[in-house]
Amino acid sequence: MILAAGLGTRMRSTLPKAMHRLGGRPMIAHLIATAETVFDRIVVVVGPGMEALAALCAPHATVVQQERLGTGHAARMAQDLFGEGDVAVLYADNPLITAVTMRALLDARQGAELALVAMRPADPGRYGRVVTEGDRVLRVVEWKDATSEERAIDLCNAGVICAGADALRGWLGDVRAENVQGEYYLTDVVALAAAKGTVRFVEAPEAELAGINSRAELARAEAALQDRLRGEAMEAGVTLVAPETVFLCADTVIEPDVVIEPNVVFGPGVTLRSHVTIRAFSHLEGCEVRGGAIIGPYARLRPGTLCAENTHVGNFVELKAVTLGEGAKANHLTYLGDAAIGPRTNVGAGTITCNYDGVFKHRTTIGADAFIGSDSIFVAPVTVGDGALVAAGSVITEAVPAEAAAFGRGRQVNKEGRAKILRDSLLARKEKR
Amino acid sequence: MILAAGLGTRMRSTLPKAMHRLGGRPMIAHLIATAETVFDRIVVVVGPGMEALAALCAPHATVVQQERLGTGHAARMAQDLFGEGDVAVLYADNPLITAVTMRALLDARQGAELALVAMRPADPGRYGRVVTEGDRVLRVVEWKDATSEERAIDLCNAGVICAGADALRGWLGDVRAENVQGEYYLTDVVALAAAKGTVRFVEAPEAELAGINSRAELARAEAALQDRLRGEAMEAGVTLVAPETVFLCADTVIEPDVVIEPNVVFGPGVTLRSHVTIRAFSHLEGCEVRGGAIIGPYARLRPGTLCAENTHVGNFVELKAVTLGEGAKANHLTYLGDAAIGPRTNVGAGTITCNYDGVFKHRTTIGADAFIGSDSIFVAPVTVGDGALVAAGSVITEAVPAEAAAFGRGRQVNKEGRAKILRDSLLARKEKR
Amino acid sequence: MILAAGLGTRMRSTLPKAMHRLGGRPMIAHLIATAETVFDRIVVVVGPGMEALAALCAPHATVVQQERLGTGHAARMAQDLFGEGDVAVLYADNPLITAVTMRALLDARQGAELALVAMRPADPGRYGRVVTEGDRVLRVVEWKDATSEERAIDLCNAGVICAGADALRGWLGDVRAENVQGEYYLTDVVALAAAKGTVRFVEAPEAELAGINSRAELARAEAALQDRLRGEAMEAGVTLVAPETVFLCADTVIEPDVVIEPNVVFGPGVTLRSHVTIRAFSHLEGCEVRGGAIIGPYARLRPGTLCAENTHVGNFVELKAVTLGEGAKANHLTYLGDAAIGPRTNVGAGTITCNYDGVFKHRTTIGADAFIGSDSIFVAPVTVGDGALVAAGSVITEAVPAEAAAFGRGRQVNKEGRAKILRDSLLARKEKR
Repeated sequence: MILAAGLGTRMRSTLPKAMHRLGGRPMIAHLIATAETVFDRIVVVVGPGMEALAALCAPHATVVQQERLGTGHAARMAQDLFGEGDVAVLYADNPLITAVTMRALLDARQGAELALVAMRPADPGRYGRVVTEGDRVLRVVEWKDATSEERAIDLCNAGVICAGADALRGWLGDVRAENVQGEYYLTDVVALAAAKGTVRFVEAPEAELAGINSRAELARAEAALQDRLRGEAMEAGVTLVAPETVFLCADTVIEPDVVIEPNVVFGPGVTLRSHVTIRAFSHLEGCEVRGGAIIGPYARLRPGTLCAENTHVGNFVELKAVTLGEGAKANHLTYLGDAAIGPRTNVGAGTITCNYDGVFKHRTTIGADAFIGSDSIFVAPVTVGDGALVAAGSVITEAVPAEAAAFGRGRQVNKEGRAKILRDSLLARKEKR
Repeated sequence: MILAAGLGTRMRSTLPKAMHRLGGRPMIAHLIATAETVFDRIVVVVGPGMEALAALCAPHATVVQQERLGTGHAARMAQDLFGEGDVAVLYADNPLITAVTMRALLDARQGAELALVAMRPADPGRYGRVVTEGDRVLRVVEWKDATSEERAIDLCNAGVICAGADALRGWLGDVRAENVQGEYYLTDVVALAAAKGTVRFVEAPEAELAGINSRAELARAEAALQDRLRGEAMEAGVTLVAPETVFLCADTVIEPDVVIEPNVVFGPGVTLRSHVTIRAFSHLEGCEVRGGAIIGPYARLRPGTLCAENTHVGNFVELKAVTLGEGAKANHLTYLGDAAIGPRTNVGAGTITCNYDGVFKHRTTIGADAFIGSDSIFVAPVTVGDGALVAAGSVITEAVPAEAAAFGRGRQVNKEGRAKILRDSLLARKEKR
Repeated sequence: MILAAGLGTRMRSTLPKAMHRLGGRPMIAHLIATAETVFDRIVVVVGPGMEALAALCAPHATVVQQERLGTGHAARMAQDLFGEGDVAVLYADNPLITAVTMRALLDARQGAELALVAMRPADPGRYGRVVTEGDRVLRVVEWKDATSEERAIDLCNAGVICAGADALRGWLGDVRAENVQGEYYLTDVVALAAAKGTVRFVEAPEAELAGINSRAELARAEAALQDRLRGEAMEAGVTLVAPETVFLCADTVIEPDVVIEPNVVFGPGVTLRSHVTIRAFSHLEGCEVRGGAIIGPYARLRPGTLCAENTHVGNFVELKAVTLGEGAKANHLTYLGDAAIGPRTNVGAGTITCNYDGVFKHRTTIGADAFIGSDSIFVAPVTVGDGALVAAGSVITEAVPAEAAAFGRGRQVNKEGRAKILRDSLLARKEKR
């Protein structure tokens, strides 16, 4: 069960908290993706009017908590969907909890009434404290109710619990809202479980469990996630010249001996094969780049792009849904969209594919070993054959046969002395003003 | 009174220290802007030859300290302009002091002879120590004269003081230059005030008061300022995916639910309305962007630009003094300058406005629902009517009526086999070399 | 002697460890460049199959350590090249050791049998500890053999030593491989030297000596190098608005009163003269920029480029092997390659030099005071005279005389009502789909 009904008032947002993004995807998507690897079934408790969030959770079931009466109440909303077996309660604003921790929680629950996740934060602040004896939890005490001795305990309650479905249903029914807020607290379940038998705990790093209640905490969680992803990449043999300036996605795949220069941003769906170099200021999403390719600086690869072996994509170049054949080059100031470029073809500076006519998108297909002069414009749909040449500055509206040269530009005329006349007239007008 | 005569030798600069920039504007401008919200009148003491600095201070009065005889001497230069009431002495190289601290200083001065600002730096180093009893200052002792007990005090003198105009004038006259440097120290005023009555202090964070004497300290102050601005933005409901990579200006206005991706730089005068997305590697100054707009990656918005609701500005696009109507798009490799683009108009890749003829700037006006083909060039002044179409690769020098299609490009000619002939001839020449 | 035979298994790389890059050049190149300023002769010990590394070391001698039998064995490989005098042993994976430390080591060796470099790391971990009495080293004890008292020592062995050539040769012959690994350890030489006479040590900062065994350690060394370079630049009077976002090279030359905005990357070979401004998101390598020039944002200067006084290079502009004369401007979306642009010439947006015909590179030469209209294409080799004008959108294939105006573009034709017809037909087709 994932509790995701929170509005996140401190986010000051019209978006439900669980939909704010981390590493390029909604928080809830992180948590669901991790939970899917551990649990058989997932139920998400959302708030009223959060249809967009519910849609993000599909195909998993969602239930709506109509009134905001606390975490215990939220959990009760989902109790008819518990089924049999063990139930864990997770939080949408703890999206970085790992599968390792989830599995440890499930393991700890075996032979105990309930297991919970605890952490030792750098600043324990006002977290509830977990009072233990050996590997058993005696009780969880809220900070405001804690003695000064209890406050000195550095083991804190992260709120994540796991228990048998039937037992949990029972305890949820017993939780009372007899407190200042008039809310039902899920934490009260721990005391009910401890009264009945053993409660165990597993410890997890603070970075997995620090809650996200404000934009600043969201930024800190993003930083923690990025640190994790960067560390994994380096461990796998990737050079990040300045790791703190590289922004990865949870699904970024990078093989060994890739070099990534400073200031590179990855969107979702990127695969980089061994021996690729990504130069500074590049932006990649939804693409595959193969060995020997050099991308950037200032290159933007957009979804649907494949850069084959030894391709070069240079500065101020955008590729969208493009296949760049082995050894092909597009080095300067170019936009290629919905195009296939053959092997070894050289695409000159300033080349543009006109792939959109205002209503439809069309494809440009250029063969192998072609030479595309600078500032060529391709009005798609259009094809250029193998070994063809397009003269610089041409507007190509019709097919160019293989080995043909296409010209589509005006002819140069020099008008002697005319520059001086024009300049003098401009300057004279300036005088008058 | 602001003391701004310092040369800042350790800056190794030909520019007066007070003119070095922080958050995109000169240090002195920060301090004046803050002081204007608290004080009735501002006088700046500058050094000889600092006319450019004096100009920056206008309309506030400046006086010149011809000889460098210390802070006490500098303050004396301005004493004829004190008038009546309270006078505070501020420092151009403490530009991050807040209005809150200034007001607290003024308050503390009520009922006391003099009030000063103190801080507790992480490393107190060689700062003068403030010896107190309760909320009274007994004395300020210079580090070199301090006993080891006094050196253990962590409350340090920031140099900022406030006193009555008449009293201050009197004490400044009594300060002596009997020290190794032969300089008049403003700090000596504290002892004179303490001899006469009560001296109080207010405490402020080190980040407001750390002096700027070198480029490294300038960079640290910039970092402190950016941290403050980023924190305020997040507090207000703005998502900064990687706050440490976003550079704001003191006057940047960002409404809630704006998302800013990594590596975005703001110059002065930017307003972003709710529900705007600024993608990575963008650079904005002097512009307004309205709800639903998506800017970047790699977009540059320059002064005088307005992007209306739901506009898209894509990669390698520069807009200068442009109005982009609701839902209009300019997504790739485009330069628009001095232009108005109507609602829903699509500006193709590689479009350029020729707004400069070498002497004058001219405007380009494009209507609503127009379709501007890629690589179109507009030789301004020129207009394009509503619903018009400009064919890709056209040079537009004359008005295009509404609903008309304009063509201004060469026609394509294919020369069969010519590419092969040209290539063979080049290769043959290569052989010969 | 530099030991560079390491494979660097934890790098997970097919590249020898010593060839991984730091500050834009291979680690080994840093170390050789520093050692060249201190030592008369350099010998590098490489591993088998490391021909590319040996080539990088030229003209210095390299010897191959065929078997991996430890550092003592590696040093023995080079002993025939020791000659007379003192020999220091350095490590390719300690590339940030300074000339100051090297010279201190040589000095310490005078009057001692052997001198070694020690450090006090923040986390001494499992480094060997250096047991001293005054300025003498009694012994170096490996962590695993150390008593708890010895482990409490914070002075650690960096492995770098210096001794007389003959003595070192002798001790290397005496080192035994009687340990679990069956390797010859160079460290054993210290005990042999201590048995014979005095051993001294010099202390150096951890940042110089932290080993590089993984990509994460490589990134940390890069960060340490960048910190050093940024600090030196600021000390010399350069403003780095956000130092942590500026990436320098070891050979970057920046004069006082240069301002560098956030997110700027320097490759090798850059010189910036006083009063240059480098705006955000710029990328420079192999170029010189002179006083008053403004570069960026988003400018890329490539090798062979000279920007003279007061030039402007704007956004999305790439210059390669270009001389830009005094006061010349190229402000938007331009690629100039292999070109000379005269003083005061204005290069319009979207200008491109076609410098490559698929086989050869050719030059474009443009005179002084010329006006190059936007979207002009220069098919090199081609020249444009002083004061000439090139009309926007022209393809220039022939010389333009001084003061002439060149036109090379299609003429505009408006077809009334045609846009509506085209749009209606597209929309009709859309309906049908």
